[in-house]
This record gives sequence, C-alpha cells and structure tokens, in this order.
Amino acid sequence: MSGESRFLTLLRLLAHDPAAQGLVDDVAILPVGDSRLILTSDTMVEGVHYLPTDPPQDIGWKLAAVNLSDLAAKGARPVGCLLNYALSGDDAWDEAFIAGLGEALDRHAMPLLGGDTVKMPGASARSYSLTAIGEATGAVPTRIGAKPGDRLYVTGPVGNAGIGLDLARADPSASGPLVEAYRRPRPRMAEGALIAPLASAMMDLSDGLLIDASRMAQASGVAITIDHVPLSAALEQVRGASVAVQIAAAQAGDDYELLFALPHGVAPPVHAIPIGHVGQGAGLTLLIDGAVMPLPDRLGWEHG
Amino acid sequence: MSGESRFLTLLRLLAHDPAAQGLVDDVAILPVGDSRLILTSDTMVEGVHYLPTDPPQDIGWKLAAVNLSDLAAKGARPVGCLLNYALSGDDAWDEAFIAGLGEALDRHAMPLLGGDTVKMPGASARSYSLTAIGEATGAVPTRIGAKPGDRLYVTGPVGNAGIGLDLARADPSASGPLVEAYRRPRPRMAEGALIAPLASAMMDLSDGLLIDASRMAQASGVAITIDHVPLSAALEQVRGASVAVQIAAAQAGDDYELLFALPHGVAPPVHAIPIGHVGQGAGLTLLIDGAVMPLPDRLGWEHG
Repeated sequence: MSGESRFLTLLRLLAHDPAAQGLVDDVAILPVGDSRLILTSDTMVEGVHYLPTDPPQDIGWKLAAVNLSDLAAKGARPVGCLLNYALSGDDAWDEAFIAGLGEALDRHAMPLLGGDTVKMPGASARSYSLTAIGEATGAVPTRIGAKPGDRLYVTGPVGNAGIGLDLARADPSASGPLVEAYRRPRPRMAEGALIAPLASAMMDLSDGLLIDASRMAQASGVAITIDHVPLSAALEQVRGASVAVQIAAAQAGDDYELLFALPHGVAPPVHAIPIGHVGQGAGLTLLIDGAVMPLPDRLGWEHG
Repeated sequence: MSGESRFLTLLRLLAHDPAAQGLVDDVAILPVGDSRLILTSDTMVEGVHYLPTDPPQDIGWKLAAVNLSDLAAKGARPVGCLLNYALSGDDAWDEAFIAGLGEALDRHAMPLLGGDTVKMPGASARSYSLTAIGEATGAVPTRIGAKPGDRLYVTGPVGNAGIGLDLARADPSASGPLVEAYRRPRPRMAEGALIAPLASAMMDLSDGLLIDASRMAQASGVAITIDHVPLSAALEQVRGASVAVQIAAAQAGDDYELLFALPHGVAPPVHAIPIGHVGQGAGLTLLIDGAVMPLPDRLGWEHG
C-alpha cells in the first residue's frame, strides 16, 4: 500500500459518521433537523492548482467556483462559506483576489460567513481553502448510484480548460474562451438543481472525464462505456479533433461540467450531451469512432 | 487605513449575512430549521503557529483543539469537521499528524466529515486548516454582550503555553506541563457548555489575555479592568511571579482557557478564577498589586 493510500485509509478511520459517506464522494451530507446540509472544502495551491501568473481576480473567482461546482453536483442551494486566506504581502493582489472571489459569491448568492487569515513565511507557495455549505433542495445524487442501463451525459464539452491552461502557461496575457474556461469556470448551479431529482448518479468534472467517470464506475460497482468525447468549436479550431486530441480532452481537468447518469428513457431536463452508458461489470471503456481505445496510463489529474 | 484593515473591510462586504456576525466574532452562527450551527475555521502554518520541530502528533492534536476551543466558547456540541491537509512528503510524519488529530477528534466525539488533501511544491511552509461545525445547545454567548457591572473570569491560569513555546524552541525535546500546555491545549468543552447559559459574553483565549479582553471590551462597547493575572504553580516555579512575568503571561497566546463575563451576583458554575470587572466607557485597564500598569505596545498575538 502506498504512503498516500495508507494516509487516506487512516483518514477514513476518523470519518465514521454516516454524513462523511466514507470520504468516497466530494461532499459530506449532514442531516440537521429536516434539512440536509451539503459540506465541501477545496484548497488551491500556487503552482499546483493555478499558475503564479494567473490574475488574482481569476484565482479568487475559481476558488469559489470549484466549491460551488461541488454543490451544483448535489443540486444544492448555496448557504454560505468560510475562507482560509494566506495574505500575499501585496495588498493590491489580495484586494484583487477578494474582488474576484466576491464576484463569484455574489453571483451565486453565497455569503462569506467566516474563516481565518494568516501570514505565510517569505518564500512559501500560497494556498487558499474555501469550505462551502449548501442545503439540499430534494434528492441528493452521489457518485455511487449509477445503474446498468443508465445513459451518461455531460452538461458541456470537455478539454477547454486543459487547453486554456496550456495557452495561459505559454502566454500569461492570452485570452479567449479557452483561457476563460480555465480561469473562470462556471459552476452549473441551475443545471444541477434541475438534474438532481432525476439522476441515478452525478458528480462534477474536476479532474478529467476519464478519471472522474472511472471513479463513478468504481463507486457504483458498474462498468461505464464512453462512446463520445464532446469537443467545443473553440477547441477544435485550435487543436483539431484527432483521436489524440479527443483522448487529451478526456484526460484534462478543471472543466466543472456535470457528469450524470439517467435511467434509460428519462430525458435530460437541460441541454446535455450524451456520452455513453452504464453496464454490468466494472471499469471504464473508451470508444472513439466506434473503436475501443487503450486507456492512457494517466486518466486525469490525481490531486485536484 | 493599512492594507490589512482594507482587506478585512473588503471581506466584511462579502459577509452581509447575519450568520457572519460582521466577522467580529470567532464563529458564524447559522440557523438551520430549529437548530443553530456554529461554524469556525482555523489554519496553522509551519513556522508561524507551530515550530517545525514540534512532534507531528501534537500539531495534529492542536489543529483540532484550537477549533474545538472556538466551539467551547459557544457552549456548542461538536458535530463534525473538514480537514484541508498538505501532504508533507514524509509518510510517517503525515501518519503521526493524523494520529494526533484523530486522538483529539475521538476524545471530543467530532467525526471527520470531509475536506481536501493537496501536495505543496518542494520548499514551502506547510499549512493545515480545519473547519469545525458545532450545534448550539442553548444560549450562544459571543464577545459582544459584556455589560457594566459584570464580573470577569477565566477557566484557568494564563501564560503557560507562552513559556512552553519558549522552552520547546530552546530545546525541542523539552517536556513537562508548560510544553504540554503549548503543544496539547485542552479545549474547555464541558466548562463552556455549563457557562454558556449564564454568561453575558465569552471567548477563548487564543491570542493572549490582554488582546482578547480588549477585543471583548471593544466589541461590547464597555471598559474592562483586569486586576489579577493568574499564574500556574508550574510557571511560577520556572519564572517567578514578578510584575514583568505577570505582564508577559497576560500577553502570551495559545492558552485556550475561556474568558467570560457573568452578571454581578451570578456564581460561576465551574471552577474559575476571578480576574476583573466590566465598567462603563471603553478600553482596557491592567492593575497589578492594585497599581495601574502602562499597557505594553504589543497586547498579544495579532494573527492567531
């Protein structure tokens, strides 16, 4: 067992409350009176989850968006959040970060409720955590419930953010829809709320379609076949739509579209792209143009 | 206005929900159905909030304890927590951290509900955040309610952890009650639950008696006089009880005793040490042996 698996096993020993769901989902589901609260927390580390050259407004926006996206995947309504902020030592930078964070919070009616501000020693990479609290509005889908016969959908194309990251890395002043997809992901709150009552399983695409779909397959104890990797026109314009580009798009993280399974015969209540189906068995199969592809060694981002 | 005050002002603009209490308290109080949830989040940064030579078990314990202490100050029952963990790159270190964290969580029946694990780039200082959720069991005192005529108490002596930090810095293998006070603070859960229904105001001593009492005075719009700085026998044995030692103890952070105000005539329901009183006006007065002391420039720890 690797050190990190051992570590996660030790964490699970502390997560004995049913609300923790054995730490296999992105969120905890905490019953409080007649309500169910959805709890999630994500950390962004400089140089790991964002580029040091990314605009601070966008980093702040993204920290809120990635947490909101976890609520969206549960169809939950945002209630509030707590921020753990490491002061940068550059007042203008900090203010721009908070402006971007605030833009995302205000857009989605998620007030800041508290948190903590710290100073980091000189040369350290900075990191920021946000803990978001939502309230379930009805059924709360998890990644566990996909069933043989279900159809699989995503709320939008994949791979945009991955290419956007490449473009931003090559030129920090780059702009356009792909860079925007990487820096300013849009959490699918409205879509999530409409899909949740119908879905057998749902999760947001944070680490990449292949790895996230394989996690859904494993958690649900089913086999998943993906027979279509949806690309945006913007991506095709830059990279084309070769098999290699499709595989790269399916490995790329940070898209924050929703991946969900619906029983056969149930139509998606929002615009969604069919990408495959759920079967008996285990594991993930990727078909491109009807041909089974060998899965890449790295299915996606392992520490998102 | 300094950069940091501007920053806090910007944060307050995002904290428009009543649950945030304008960010003047250590916690948010969130009504959910008939319950009130208490939310708090604290970050510990290597080299800022703990020594790199501190044992990892103790760092884990302390991260849980400082958050539990915020719940104790509200008389709240722990419900669960989310952990943001930066892997150290040293498996044994990480496992020891989690063992110490788990010891504190189990002791106080606070399950881990979720969170996030990240890898930091090579030479960075590491930081850990915990977000704790509690449930109010009755009245929820804040730092705002102290009233003229109230008597002021603490649940134990102050300054132990400050001396413990000095001893641990000089010799990482040092042990004894003072080092223990610094590394393994005991959150006053049972005391907090008993005091909460009676107290006009309560907070935990995280940054030092003088600064925390001055915050209570400012938040409550009252004057506070401290006429007794309680020292432990262990501290007196090492440092004596001179005026300078008393002032240093009142400036030292990390004690995690509860500071609370009771109406005149109300007896503390637990063992507690009377340390002063609340009057009309504003500001903090420190008396030692009946003489007014000039307040030190630095009242306590400013970024705890």
